[in-house]
Amino acid sequence: MTGTGKVYLIGAGPGDVDLMTMRAMRMLGEADAVVYDRLVSPEILQLAPATAQMVPVGKAPKCHTVPQGRINEILAELARDGLTVARLKGGDPLIFGRGSEEAAYLMDRGIAVDYAPGITAAQGMSAGTGVPLTHRGLATGVRYVTGHRAADKRLDLDWKSLASEETTLVVYMGVANIAEIALRLMGEGMPATLPVMAISNATTPRETRLVSRLDRIGVEIAEVPLRAPVLFVIGHVVSLYRERAVAETLPEAAVMVGE
Amino acid sequence: MTGTGKVYLIGAGPGDVDLMTMRAMRMLGEADAVVYDRLVSPEILQLAPATAQMVPVGKAPKCHTVPQGRINEILAELARDGLTVARLKGGDPLIFGRGSEEAAYLMDRGIAVDYAPGITAAQGMSAGTGVPLTHRGLATGVRYVTGHRAADKRLDLDWKSLASEETTLVVYMGVANIAEIALRLMGEGMPATLPVMAISNATTPRETRLVSRLDRIGVEIAEVPLRAPVLFVIGHVVSLYRERAVAETLPEAAVMVGE
Ligand SMILES: C[S@@+](CC[C@H](N)C(=O)[O-])C[C@H]1O[C@@H](n2cnc3c(N)ncnc32)[C@H](O)[C@@H]1O
Ligand SMILES: C[S@@+](CC[C@H](N)C(=O)[O-])C[C@H]1O[C@@H](n2cnc3c(N)ncnc32)[C@H](O)[C@@H]1O
Repeated sequence: MTGTGKVYLIGAGPGDVDLMTMRAMRMLGEADAVVYDRLVSPEILQLAPATAQMVPVGKAPKCHTVPQGRINEILAELARDGLTVARLKGGDPLIFGRGSEEAAYLMDRGIAVDYAPGITAAQGMSAGTGVPLTHRGLATGVRYVTGHRAADKRLDLDWKSLASEETTLVVYMGVANIAEIALRLMGEGMPATLPVMAISNATTPRETRLVSRLDRIGVEIAEVPLRAPVLFVIGHVVSLYRERAVAETLPEAAVMVGE
Repeated sequence: MTGTGKVYLIGAGPGDVDLMTMRAMRMLGEADAVVYDRLVSPEILQLAPATAQMVPVGKAPKCHTVPQGRINEILAELARDGLTVARLKGGDPLIFGRGSEEAAYLMDRGIAVDYAPGITAAQGMSAGTGVPLTHRGLATGVRYVTGHRAADKRLDLDWKSLASEETTLVVYMGVANIAEIALRLMGEGMPATLPVMAISNATTPRETRLVSRLDRIGVEIAEVPLRAPVLFVIGHVVSLYRERAVAETLPEAAVMVGE
């Protein structure tokens, strides 16, 4: 029998393989087993070693998924079999990723863990669209919140605290509640015209964007539903959005304009 | 004469080369010129092509630095010379990085820009220490703020909004003002025992950590000054910190404990 294996808690980033860190790539390359969520893009799963055992554990809202307790057990069992386990998560494992819950479970059982951080969905949106998360004069900080609550719970966000025009507000897992979130923020004095961007499948070939405002986002997202996963960015930084702003080489003729 | 070059706004991450994204590595590898801040680690600068022109532009608080306007001009001049310019920034270029200011300046002049996002200092701290940025029951969200203001300005943070025990508060550029920040948060009802971690040079061989509490951090940081750059993490998630928690393989004998 071999010794106990280990578990790498890996941030796979928002989807684009190119946005994985070197560490994440290396850890994935070492894996004997890959345990992954629905959020991990097919492009990234293809990078797993051909010999690795692939273990999907779901985690899409309202779909059949493996409960967290069972995921913890699966990770521990694979490690006890002496395997190097790559636990792949969308974005960063320590931001809305339950990475620290899995780590605590494993460490309590003497199983070694290590992390690879990942580019968050918000950062992927930002680099891909050119909309910054902070910007002088538009946002002095950024805040990530979850717009999701367990089925039996009310959305009990601290609306007064969230209603700050100087902070970029990024809403994860917010599709079901974005209309209510927008209404509440306006109720706390946020302007109806405050720009909002919804982005679906950011940084993947399936990416779609919707630029809206606080008073319209609820209706617009209902009219043109975006495919999960969807992220909302609320704040003045969205006003900096220019279509085709980045990654587009402008024609030579345009080069001298403005100087 | 060659055509106009382009500028890559690259997040170099918190310091560890291993935490750079694949895209950042590739863009840096293409560079004819590298324009970099003080925050970019020497380990990362060594990855620039041997032939690349290296252009330091400073940006350490209170030290001699190139003003932002001049940095913008340097980037535009290099690109107009037909060069591929790698503009390297610590962390993510679009979070307290002025990446979007530089991009706007360049795009207004017809110069193509593209981004590589980077792992933030906060994420580097998190993956390296095992302290998550969100965690069920301890933090339902995370917020990045800057603790720095221009010399002539008061620190005018919205204390009431910041004082939330359910949100992990990450203070960038906060060394000079952390004592005031801690006092103000306690003034708004945050418990004196709320854990705080200060981390210097996270993810580099020079990393040091200080685990403290809201009522002590001001004094302790004055007694044992940490070398810049320093980040503060305030919130219950810091209670999950275990020394040597991650990246340490435990002895075989410990493996079966607890099951
Ligand atoms: C369980 S959270 C995981 C967050 C992730 N750990 C991170 O750091 O970005 C799932 C939510 O992340 C967001 N998300 C993840 N990947 C995304 C993508 N490529 N595009 C848009 N939203 C995404 C969506 O809001 C989704 O509901
Ligand atoms: C101008 S901000 C740059 C933030 C960066 N763009 C990011 O995304 O993390 C500079 C501040 O970042 C923090 N910082 C950057 N790198 C760090 C590191 N390796 N360790 C601790 N703090 C760091 C410090 O608070 C420093 O004052």
